[in-house]
Amino acid sequence: MSKHIDYLRENEGLFVQYLKDFISIPSISASPFHSKDVRRAAKWVEKRLRYAGLENVQLMKTGRHPVVYGDWLHAGARNPTILIYGHFDVQPIDPIELWESEPFKARIQGDRIYGRGSSDDKGSMLTPIIAVESFLRTQKKLPINVKFLFEGQEEIGSPEMSNFVQRNQQKFSCDMIFSADGGQWSASQSNLILSLKGVICMQLEVSGPKTDQHSGLQGAAIANPIMALSSIISSMKDRTGRVCVDGFYDDVIELTPDDKIQIAKIPFSDREYCEEMGVCKLAGEYGFTTLERIWSRPTLDLNGIWGGFQGEGIKTVLPSKAGAKISCRLVEKQSPVMIFKNINSHVQANLPNGVTANLSWLPGYALPFCVPPDHKSTEIAKEVLSEIYGETPYMVRAGASIPILPIFHKNLGIHATVLAFSLDDENLHAPNEFFRLSSFIKGQLVYARLFERLGEL
Amino acid sequence: MSKHIDYLRENEGLFVQYLKDFISIPSISASPFHSKDVRRAAKWVEKRLRYAGLENVQLMKTGRHPVVYGDWLHAGARNPTILIYGHFDVQPIDPIELWESEPFKARIQGDRIYGRGSSDDKGSMLTPIIAVESFLRTQKKLPINVKFLFEGQEEIGSPEMSNFVQRNQQKFSCDMIFSADGGQWSASQSNLILSLKGVICMQLEVSGPKTDQHSGLQGAAIANPIMALSSIISSMKDRTGRVCVDGFYDDVIELTPDDKIQIAKIPFSDREYCEEMGVCKLAGEYGFTTLERIWSRPTLDLNGIWGGFQGEGIKTVLPSKAGAKISCRLVEKQSPVMIFKNINSHVQANLPNGVTANLSWLPGYALPFCVPPDHKSTEIAKEVLSEIYGETPYMVRAGASIPILPIFHKNLGIHATVLAFSLDDENLHAPNEFFRLSSFIKGQLVYARLFERLGEL
Repeated sequence: MSKHIDYLRENEGLFVQYLKDFISIPSISASPFHSKDVRRAAKWVEKRLRYAGLENVQLMKTGRHPVVYGDWLHAGARNPTILIYGHFDVQPIDPIELWESEPFKARIQGDRIYGRGSSDDKGSMLTPIIAVESFLRTQKKLPINVKFLFEGQEEIGSPEMSNFVQRNQQKFSCDMIFSADGGQWSASQSNLILSLKGVICMQLEVSGPKTDQHSGLQGAAIANPIMALSSIISSMKDRTGRVCVDGFYDDVIELTPDDKIQIAKIPFSDREYCEEMGVCKLAGEYGFTTLERIWSRPTLDLNGIWGGFQGEGIKTVLPSKAGAKISCRLVEKQSPVMIFKNINSHVQANLPNGVTANLSWLPGYALPFCVPPDHKSTEIAKEVLSEIYGETPYMVRAGASIPILPIFHKNLGIHATVLAFSLDDENLHAPNEFFRLSSFIKGQLVYARLFERLGEL
Repeated sequence: MSKHIDYLRENEGLFVQYLKDFISIPSISASPFHSKDVRRAAKWVEKRLRYAGLENVQLMKTGRHPVVYGDWLHAGARNPTILIYGHFDVQPIDPIELWESEPFKARIQGDRIYGRGSSDDKGSMLTPIIAVESFLRTQKKLPINVKFLFEGQEEIGSPEMSNFVQRNQQKFSCDMIFSADGGQWSASQSNLILSLKGVICMQLEVSGPKTDQHSGLQGAAIANPIMALSSIISSMKDRTGRVCVDGFYDDVIELTPDDKIQIAKIPFSDREYCEEMGVCKLAGEYGFTTLERIWSRPTLDLNGIWGGFQGEGIKTVLPSKAGAKISCRLVEKQSPVMIFKNINSHVQANLPNGVTANLSWLPGYALPFCVPPDHKSTEIAKEVLSEIYGETPYMVRAGASIPILPIFHKNLGIHATVLAFSLDDENLHAPNEFFRLSSFIKGQLVYARLFERLGEL
């Protein structure tokens, strides 16, 4: 029974080499320039699944970046069938100048492996593959039936995955779903996720004069699109951090007093968090604790802004256009369609004189996701995590989004359990992303134990 | 007496070739990458001055881009000595994608010659050189003594010119100054300038978390630097277009009722101006006519903004930093030092929670400039323009700045007269800049006539 554990231990160096190889593929799904690299990453995953001993391994077309599928279904009908999810695409790398080493050349320093995608999600998504490999290559069998589904468009909001999963309901049917995208509380403390936020992304463009103008000649007489854009943006939040868009909070399900008590039990220090972020003071919606805000409150954030001259020194231009990227994180029961509608109305109602504004919906979105009480796969994961980490996992909520989870729920009728190994300090979506090698090893053990535990049901 | 006029007529094609050559040198003073090109432009001007027959032609060091000097001082002490000014540096070319032809490859279409710097200021600054050439090459003499001073740092605010002119007061001493940088009212209507605005340029940088963060994980708990920047910027102006920075208007000399009457006499159509700009509605400070705003009211403009992800699609980042470029146009008696101080206080007083902000003064500035009543060189220019254009010039004020004019006044004791030939619609500082060939010819005639007229004094 411990042959597969020996296999995991003996091949630690090899598995790190897998991860290094995987990181070296710049699979940035947001960049058309890197489409081929996303496909290369898919082919790489395909090869890994075959080597692990999976069957029916294939690339599946989605209309965008491909999905990689593989299964092993010989554990019999008495044993459960689980679907394991992860993604092999990564975030863009700008601002590139802040990286201390090549984003796509893995660098190991102590327990850390640096590289874009190391933590989100290449490190975590490899752990169940390696766990399967450890069984199939030492015992030729698994205690359960497994299906793998890896996507390459998570970082752009999984725009094609809803249709794709719907078209393949039969193929992906299962008893439980585990997401190998997500994270743990700390290196020594595990967690399980009760809810994730939805997300909707928008682009706001403000237009003034038909061409760029000289600020001296025209600045006193026509509107400045940057000033107008700033005014629209700042009108969206008040001084207490509350979003001022009409109807924004209408459908929010507020935390119950008991939810607040449970959240308050999780150890969290505002002071330490400030230090970790490098900020003098926290911000956000007034009237909630930091964890309540992160876990349960919808947000409106600016992800980018541009306009006019951005170079060294000065160019006294009055630009023709300015723009910004806006995203909202949503909680149950907020609807992306209603939120977009409300923000669009707000923009038009708060339009300064002399400019026009256009709000567009950027492809992809996620619905909010909530695990029901007594959720079976979550309960089993709780046992496994307690055993491997030596402590009961915290039951947490997440500020982030995993668009595929509500898609799975809608099309397969299954609420997924997030079982992955990133930590919050690993610079996800930022320069110098890293993953912990200790998490990588622990993740393999967690999945191996999960398979055994599920086989005992 | 008309030999030089024949010379101008016969060599029209050659002079256009001068201008084409001159435009082909990408003398962008703001770009360190183009420093050598600014110097190349200086050498080109040096060559032209020598060819025109000027003496003591030389490049002079300024600590930044060089000055080109040349003179002809053989008209005798009874005749006046005039200093003629212009600049051979140009604005940056971004947004490059909006240019319909190569910015540094002159393209002629009808009466228009397109190219960066064609209107500001390469076209105008060539006109007095060509006028001098027409005299010296046909008559070996000029009716007056002439000094030329051309700079290569006007578009970055002439940061070294104040010290430079001060160090060379003797060399540049003169009776009158004419600026070949500036413009006319229209192709058929000339103007002379009563005042120009000052300018001060600043960079505002807002810092939040020490590195870029994931907007889902941290967006509800820490301040977003783009939102904070937008909030600071929009707090600088109210809904009536008035700058809300304390003390901003304290030193402004208001227009007198008579000034307003004179301004109202100049034909100006808001509707046509809207059309020309391509805006639905004008904007700016409430309570003033459009010309009053442009000519006499100080402004605060945004010239650039940046932060976070600016590419296609979305990256749900919460950026560490965001920044903007701000410029203020000043009128008498506003002081750039006081304005900077007031804006800096405003930024700190309006700083949202959880971010820090830094306002820095970008190199170069200009004091406001005002011509006194009965100004001799302006009166003579008025006669010359009336003769060449067939109409009395409008007496106007300018929204733009020419930093060198207050520098000349301070160090040489002379108020300059602006005598140049750009028109407002020529996309100065914007893509597809052009100059009118008819203005180019008219400018040569104006300077030739000016020299004669000054010789008759």
